[in-house]
Formats: sequence, structure tokens, C-alpha cells
Amino acid sequence: MPGGTFDDTFRAELEELIRWRRDVRRFRKDEVDPVLIEHLLEVADHAPSVGLSQPWRFVAVTGEMERAAIIESYERCNKQALQGYEGSDADLYATLKLEGLREAPVQFAVFCDEATAKGKRLGSRTMPETLRYSVVTAVHTFWLTARAAGLGVGWVSILEPEAVKEALAVPQDWTLVAYLCVGYPQEEHTDPELERAGWEKRE
Amino acid sequence: MPGGTFDDTFRAELEELIRWRRDVRRFRKDEVDPVLIEHLLEVADHAPSVGLSQPWRFVAVTGEMERAAIIESYERCNKQALQGYEGSDADLYATLKLEGLREAPVQFAVFCDEATAKGKRLGSRTMPETLRYSVVTAVHTFWLTARAAGLGVGWVSILEPEAVKEALAVPQDWTLVAYLCVGYPQEEHTDPELERAGWEKRE
Repeated sequence: MPGGTFDDTFRAELEELIRWRRDVRRFRKDEVDPVLIEHLLEVADHAPSVGLSQPWRFVAVTGEMERAAIIESYERCNKQALQGYEGSDADLYATLKLEGLREAPVQFAVFCDEATAKGKRLGSRTMPETLRYSVVTAVHTFWLTARAAGLGVGWVSILEPEAVKEALAVPQDWTLVAYLCVGYPQEEHTDPELERAGWEKRE
Repeated sequence: MPGGTFDDTFRAELEELIRWRRDVRRFRKDEVDPVLIEHLLEVADHAPSVGLSQPWRFVAVTGEMERAAIIESYERCNKQALQGYEGSDADLYATLKLEGLREAPVQFAVFCDEATAKGKRLGSRTMPETLRYSVVTAVHTFWLTARAAGLGVGWVSILEPEAVKEALAVPQDWTLVAYLCVGYPQEEHTDPELERAGWEKRE
């Protein structure tokens, strides 16, 4: 196809990718080729950003102590979250596996560099949150291209942003947007619609 | 390919799509098939959302008065933004076309329904902003699939969220996340890297 045009076959596969993408919680411990990860990050740099600010900062979380601190933060938050449910909701919540923090071989804390001068704040004066929204599009881009490469990604939000910042010693004016677990998924998904129902079916 | 697996050809085209995607400001006034728009919205419903909350609300902006109110809000904000620049930056800023509000045949204000009970707040208690981040992934999904269909999308952030809410009479607990201009683009992009440079080259 001429540059920048896409045919029906591609569009059908793109939709398939979008429907198959999952939040993965069960990972195999198999290592992921760092060359692949670097490539996915480079592609993610082409995500949209307000004023072309590209304010995302993907911080790899590799050390044992760093990962332990992340897990501790998760445990504190999850315990509090459980207390927000009653009866059968609470029972079910307690059984859910909501993260792959102990198994995922690759993990990133993705921040927004709120102080970046890149783009000279074009487009973000009235709605400064668009800087963080730009980071979300980079995360989503990474998520889709990773899935296309057979990798699972799980976005863990049950964390204390300040605890994560401190554990990773990042600059004060960075805001945590997302924490990502990345690796080859353990689960087999035979039906993209069915297996999503779970928690939702209880409504 | 077996369901859920993607080959190198698809992955290369996906990357091409990501690199070709633009924030479009110059639109042709040609109408867009509403069936196509509906389809793109249905696919966007498969974007990731915290706790499967799907909190996005795409509100079509069609009426003359509504569109006039949006344009007025933009003009107020853009005038203020211009005042934030000096000298040659200000001169350049004043020449930039930052939106297609007068021409784009299809326009959406995309909100986050902050009060949605869907998903029972799973995953969003510690970081409630993840509800809005979920809306961003739906916007980004729409953006990519629209681009694959030859449509341009422009995200206009130079707006007053409260003025937009009021103009569209949406529920009070909805938050404006994005305003989208959609249509067939006027500009031809022969080199995806070159034409992005513009504003950035001045740093």
C-alpha cells in the first residue's frame, strides 16, 4: 500500500488486536529479549502528545529491593481496597489475581515529566492534565504493539504513587501515571469476550 | 493466523500506522459515513479500562449553537495562551492552526463518567485518575482505527472544560477528557518525520 494508507485486511487484523488485548496478570518467568523491549519503547515514542511534548518516562524496575517496595505498596493498597467491599463482593475480590508483580520479568513505572520544557506548553495551559493523558497514549501504544508481538502487559493501578516515586528515586516533579508488568502470558485466551465477563457479570 | 496471533507483516503495518498518525487540523468538509463512525466507536469500546468500568462517553457535537460555543471557548483560551509567549515564539504561535473546529464534519466531546458504578471501582480507589486514563485509551483507539480508515482526528485541548460541559448540558459528574475533530484530512503528508518538526525545531 502507498505510505500511510491501510487496506481492509490490515484494518480487520487491527480490530482483532484491539479485541484480543488483555490486562495480563499471570506471566511466565521466561525472559524477554531486551532488543524487543527497546524497539517497543521506540515505537511508543510516536504516540500522540500535547504540543509534541513527549512527557513520558519509562523507568525499568529491576532491582530486588525496588520490586519488593512495589509489592509492599500493592499489598497495603489492596488490603484497603478489600475493606471497601462487603459480603459476596468481598469474598470474590479476595480471590482475584489483580497483578503479576512477582512473576513478570519486565516491569516499568511510567511517569509524566510535569516540568518538561519540550513543546513549550503548547496546548496544555488550559488543560494541564493533557500532559498525563499523553503518557497514557504512549502506554497504550506500548500495550498494543507488545500484544502484537505475543507479549502480555498488565497495568497495575493499586499502588501508592508517592511510595513508587520514592522507591525509584525519580525527580520530584514526575507524576506516576502507570505501572506495567510485561512478559509472556501464562493464560490461554480462547474466547476474547467470555473471559472478560468475570467481575462484571456480578452486576 | 490463529486467533490472537499476529505476523511480522501486520506488525510492520501497525508500526507504520503509529508513525503516520497525526493530530489533524485541516479537514475537508466532506461528510463521513455515520455507519463508519458507529463502527469505530464500537471498536473503541474494547479499549482497556480500570476494573472494566468503560467510563468513556462520546458526545456528538452537531448543533450550530453548540459548535459556536465550543469555538468561542477555544478563542478565549487561545488568546490567553498567546499571551504566554514572547517575541518570535508569540509571532509563530499566532500563525499556527491548532484546530479544525470550523471545518471538521464530525466532532465529539469525550467525557469520563466519574460516577459510574460499572466495575465497582475495582482498581481505581488508590488512583481515581485511572478512570480518566481509561477514557484516554478509548480516544487513542478511536484515533488509530480512524487513521487506518483514512480519517483524520485532531484532539483539541485549548478549551475550558466547564464551558464545554455547559454547552452540551451533560451530567455534572462528567469530566471533559478530550474534544475530537474528525474528518477527511486536507493535508497530504509525504514524510511522517519531517512535517512533525515545525514547532519543535525552535527549541
